[in-house]
Amino acid sequence: MLKFDVLTVGNAIVDIISRCEDSFLEDNAITKAAMNLIDAERAEKLYSLMGPAIEASGGSAGNTAAGIASLGGKAAYFGKVANDQLGKIFEHDIRAQGVHYQTKAGGNNPPTARSMIFVTPDGERSMNTYLGACVELGPEDVEADVVAASKVTYFEGYLWDPPRAKQAIRECARIAHENGREVSMTLSDSFCVGRYRDEFLELMQSGTIDIVFANKSEVLALYETEDFEQALDNIARDSKLAAVTMSEEGAVIVKGEERIRVEATEIRELVDTTGAGDLFAAGFLFGYTQGRSLFDCGRLGCFAAGLVIQQIGPRPNLSLEKAAREAGLI
Amino acid sequence: MLKFDVLTVGNAIVDIISRCEDSFLEDNAITKAAMNLIDAERAEKLYSLMGPAIEASGGSAGNTAAGIASLGGKAAYFGKVANDQLGKIFEHDIRAQGVHYQTKAGGNNPPTARSMIFVTPDGERSMNTYLGACVELGPEDVEADVVAASKVTYFEGYLWDPPRAKQAIRECARIAHENGREVSMTLSDSFCVGRYRDEFLELMQSGTIDIVFANKSEVLALYETEDFEQALDNIARDSKLAAVTMSEEGAVIVKGEERIRVEATEIRELVDTTGAGDLFAAGFLFGYTQGRSLFDCGRLGCFAAGLVIQQIGPRPNLSLEKAAREAGLI
Repeated sequence: MLKFDVLTVGNAIVDIISRCEDSFLEDNAITKAAMNLIDAERAEKLYSLMGPAIEASGGSAGNTAAGIASLGGKAAYFGKVANDQLGKIFEHDIRAQGVHYQTKAGGNNPPTARSMIFVTPDGERSMNTYLGACVELGPEDVEADVVAASKVTYFEGYLWDPPRAKQAIRECARIAHENGREVSMTLSDSFCVGRYRDEFLELMQSGTIDIVFANKSEVLALYETEDFEQALDNIARDSKLAAVTMSEEGAVIVKGEERIRVEATEIRELVDTTGAGDLFAAGFLFGYTQGRSLFDCGRLGCFAAGLVIQQIGPRPNLSLEKAAREAGLI
Repeated sequence: MLKFDVLTVGNAIVDIISRCEDSFLEDNAITKAAMNLIDAERAEKLYSLMGPAIEASGGSAGNTAAGIASLGGKAAYFGKVANDQLGKIFEHDIRAQGVHYQTKAGGNNPPTARSMIFVTPDGERSMNTYLGACVELGPEDVEADVVAASKVTYFEGYLWDPPRAKQAIRECARIAHENGREVSMTLSDSFCVGRYRDEFLELMQSGTIDIVFANKSEVLALYETEDFEQALDNIARDSKLAAVTMSEEGAVIVKGEERIRVEATEIRELVDTTGAGDLFAAGFLFGYTQGRSLFDCGRLGCFAAGLVIQQIGPRPNLSLEKAAREAGLI
């Protein structure tokens, strides 16, 4: 009997969120809208320059798991925190959302990962991530029974940054496929694609992954082109199924010759884009594991993304299930 | 030359904020709208029952200091955190707001205080506070030069809960008055008033404090009456100046025979009442230390309170100075 709809695997991160002007990004050499990897020293420096902030559990795949659970799906998560206060907060929040989370915490050092997220007046988020305890995630953290019991195992491209997480992912993919399950990934970030383009392409072309999530800039970066339609043709060739988001232009689902276009949800006010892609994946995979049409999966993805960008923080602060029901989507 | 407009002293607390239904409060014996003091064991229990949360620096007097700084005033703060991650977050946030904060952190244990705040659908907050490192605040933490250089020293009634903080407060009051400064307090919470009624009355009647802040239920609790006008007459007799807030009915400033009434600011949506009283005090004391009329002080108080209850978290996430300027208040 199936136990989980979706298992997600990612860097377990607590977000530290503050607003700033665009000039702050420029003055501090922060690449806007990107995930900037930083070391402990730079983390301390940037924090000393950051305004008053709030903290919220984050991490791309963690947000996706939380979103799936909030929609009423059964989600599980693998990711590494330290045995410290931020780690306890991360554990609490994901479990309180109903997600299975049993990855053994590391020691005190390195500490739990944190990402300093600067939100500019346009709502765009620019992340500065110190990976901390995430570097310790490895194949020993794979709960084989959970992988085997999950319809889809989904992971972040970001996991190519810590040294041994990719071994865990390859192990997950092997177990999943042996059990007739599907494997999915997000390309995460265009700069991340730049760092690991060949490996990501190999994952797709070898069939290690079945479903790819990306946004427009990531898919352009993957194929080193500025021709979006060409990039879509390429991703159609390289993967069985791809869902490509395009911000306010919605999303396009790509499967062989099919191009299924989905409009973005109308929003009242763009507050903070943090978590948009993660929640798109949550909505899509929730629909997918419920056997919905690809168009409906796309709509659920756009709906969940549309909600999370109208609040501060990367995980929806309301029940997505209730909201989606009210919107007539489930 | 004056260095600070207002020094505030209080329990240094990180808030852990989540929404819940009213039934959750009932099921868990949480007194609604109050500050419930809890021990470490109950803190762990309640946290295990709490939904996904966000974290934000709080503490009543800390919020007031942050509000004064956000209005453009010069603020200082005394309060005790531990040498842990939550303590670092608290330190960061208050300093990043421009508040002078140099209280020496304690060790690792007890940890930094936290308050689990449950916000019900009506926007009311119910707090559950584990005092942690706050119990270590004592007279040795009084920076005499800061007290001497502050126009007003303001403290929380909540400081009567930890064992030695009241000694620090009496020392602050002595130094302040020796330097021709004023001393102010908030009654904090009607149950807190119940615990320390005689001591609070003594502080007022002895002239240890000059300005009292309270809300309606606190002033009724102080005089053990249900007659609000009678309670106002009593507080007029017992203190030189009092500012009494009445939620959506605004506030009344009480000075001898004078009763200066100020309307509440109109709001779009009540989101979370956390910090309302703290920000009223911030606006009032900012105006007061700028030499504004008592009516204007009350308006600034209502304005700052009105802003903070339209967001999640106890400290304004925008510049109060800018907002007050746009509203024509400064």
